[in-house]
Amino acid sequence: MRGVVMHAPGDIRVERREDPGIVAPTDAVIRLSASCVCGSDLWPYRGIEAVEGPAPMGHEYVGVVEEVGSEVRTVAPGRFVVGSFFASDNTCEICRAGYQSSCVRRELMGTLGAQAERLRVPLADGTLVATPDMPSEDLIPSLLTASDVLGTGWFGAVAAQAGPGRTVAVVGDGAVGLLAVLAARQLGAERVIAMSRHEPRQRLARAFGATDIVTERGDEGVARIREMTGGLGAHSVVEAVGTQESMLQAIGSTRPGGHVGYVGVAHGVALDGQELFFSHVHLHGGPAPVRQYLPRLIDLIWNRRIDPGRVFDLDLPLDRAAEAYRAMDERRAVKALLRV
Amino acid sequence: MRGVVMHAPGDIRVERREDPGIVAPTDAVIRLSASCVCGSDLWPYRGIEAVEGPAPMGHEYVGVVEEVGSEVRTVAPGRFVVGSFFASDNTCEICRAGYQSSCVRRELMGTLGAQAERLRVPLADGTLVATPDMPSEDLIPSLLTASDVLGTGWFGAVAAQAGPGRTVAVVGDGAVGLLAVLAARQLGAERVIAMSRHEPRQRLARAFGATDIVTERGDEGVARIREMTGGLGAHSVVEAVGTQESMLQAIGSTRPGGHVGYVGVAHGVALDGQELFFSHVHLHGGPAPVRQYLPRLIDLIWNRRIDPGRVFDLDLPLDRAAEAYRAMDERRAVKALLRV
Repeated sequence: MRGVVMHAPGDIRVERREDPGIVAPTDAVIRLSASCVCGSDLWPYRGIEAVEGPAPMGHEYVGVVEEVGSEVRTVAPGRFVVGSFFASDNTCEICRAGYQSSCVRRELMGTLGAQAERLRVPLADGTLVATPDMPSEDLIPSLLTASDVLGTGWFGAVAAQAGPGRTVAVVGDGAVGLLAVLAARQLGAERVIAMSRHEPRQRLARAFGATDIVTERGDEGVARIREMTGGLGAHSVVEAVGTQESMLQAIGSTRPGGHVGYVGVAHGVALDGQELFFSHVHLHGGPAPVRQYLPRLIDLIWNRRIDPGRVFDLDLPLDRAAEAYRAMDERRAVKALLRV
Repeated sequence: MRGVVMHAPGDIRVERREDPGIVAPTDAVIRLSASCVCGSDLWPYRGIEAVEGPAPMGHEYVGVVEEVGSEVRTVAPGRFVVGSFFASDNTCEICRAGYQSSCVRRELMGTLGAQAERLRVPLADGTLVATPDMPSEDLIPSLLTASDVLGTGWFGAVAAQAGPGRTVAVVGDGAVGLLAVLAARQLGAERVIAMSRHEPRQRLARAFGATDIVTERGDEGVARIREMTGGLGAHSVVEAVGTQESMLQAIGSTRPGGHVGYVGVAHGVALDGQELFFSHVHLHGGPAPVRQYLPRLIDLIWNRRIDPGRVFDLDLPLDRAAEAYRAMDERRAVKALLRV
């Protein structure tokens, strides 16, 4: 089969890879309908995170089940499924508490390479959720977002306790940040402030429910959010970047007793204990337990209550993956879909 | 009047200080019944925190109201009162959300010097809570703990979401840590693990409701807690020290999705963003909003349901404050009461 492989920073190739098969009796193999490039794929692409190339890439996927292991019960060949970027058994104590991305048996899908024609999914019963039926073509981009960026933005908003009566600010205007705006509104937040200086992304943020746009960053961004919230700061702030600046911007924009939900994979972030102490915020985040939210998100998409697929502003065949990475790296695209 | 003054690290004197009077119409002046030395007083005493001496010391206090400003409504001369270490108006939006120690009008009581015969308390209506009647002598130590160490341990346990069905570990066996053990049990925690290697403190922890004692520290302490919790970590961990080692011990001892409540004033702590991200814990803490808990804590003490005053293992007259500091610095005393 064909699949995306990173050989070194900036070096993305579509190559022949071995076809995956059932390894454990809890596995499924799916034929992908679509995959995409994630903001987190850019860390190794930019050389900020080490690549042990040649590395298969991709961890976001939707598709049709082709084959299942002997112990798989909840999904069957022919079903259209959405999975999370971490495989999880969904039965351990951590999963049952809603933290499937820290499942005691978790496996990172990224190492299996979902930017490909076919994918082995471990712990299929715990990881995959089937749609009610075969989706129409136009629903596929939205369903694909549920696999990571929508689920991650949703977790960020939940971790920030976005809800009725609360003012939510979102730091980061990538796909996750934009979908955190959508999530915050779905969760009932009254006011949602998107922090963005890019006009097309501001438009998308507004379409997803942002009530306000703030273009300032860093200390100026913090000052602007405080000014808009009676000097106190927002109740809830979602951090969707992962840098020192964005974390401090998020913490500084949150009122005492408020909640920061951080979902940008932290790179080079060090938090000063005393500043954090006196900020009085709640801090929660990490790899999103997307599996927890999949049934709800699939339902919202299936019934066309939300349209998160609008974050894809580039749509390419798998063979042109290198172009997709380049466009996202240069911020010419918010998020690139790869048609398989 | 007489009051404790720190001139430099290690240099504690009891001197004549000017008698406090009403400055603002919202002030009260109280005659102290007792004060005490706080673990946080040891930071400047040890030279870890700068002292701009001569500095009046102390921020824990109970006593009888002597005089009130013209706008004070809820406390009157002759009433016995307990106050928090931060004065707060208890009416602003932050106070109403339960974060009185970040009140928009807060004043740090430490700068006013509660280790003294008399004390001016700003924002008296918002800061002070009167007891039902004049307390008997034996209740005074317990009521005094409500002013800080009990309220702080309580906040730590609340921030860590101690409650029914949860296993709580407490890092730190100072007065705050020991009272976090008491709080965790009062809040319904099933299992409370005190981390302590000091036999007298272990005994007190058991008396306050600890079900288990762990003597290991650092990575070994983390390994021990994980071993005791099916490899997962505790649901709730209270951090009551404030060093890098204790913070990492607390975070490492918490399961994914669990809660760290940190109340040790952080000194030299820097948290690695990526480690925090993948720990998947909730982190919350800071200066305890003691005022929020005062009515409940006074009630528990008044009805002799709890006996937090047992943390005082040294009882000295105010004039011997220097001895009290020395004994706590050398860890010969858990907490020293100063009789006024």
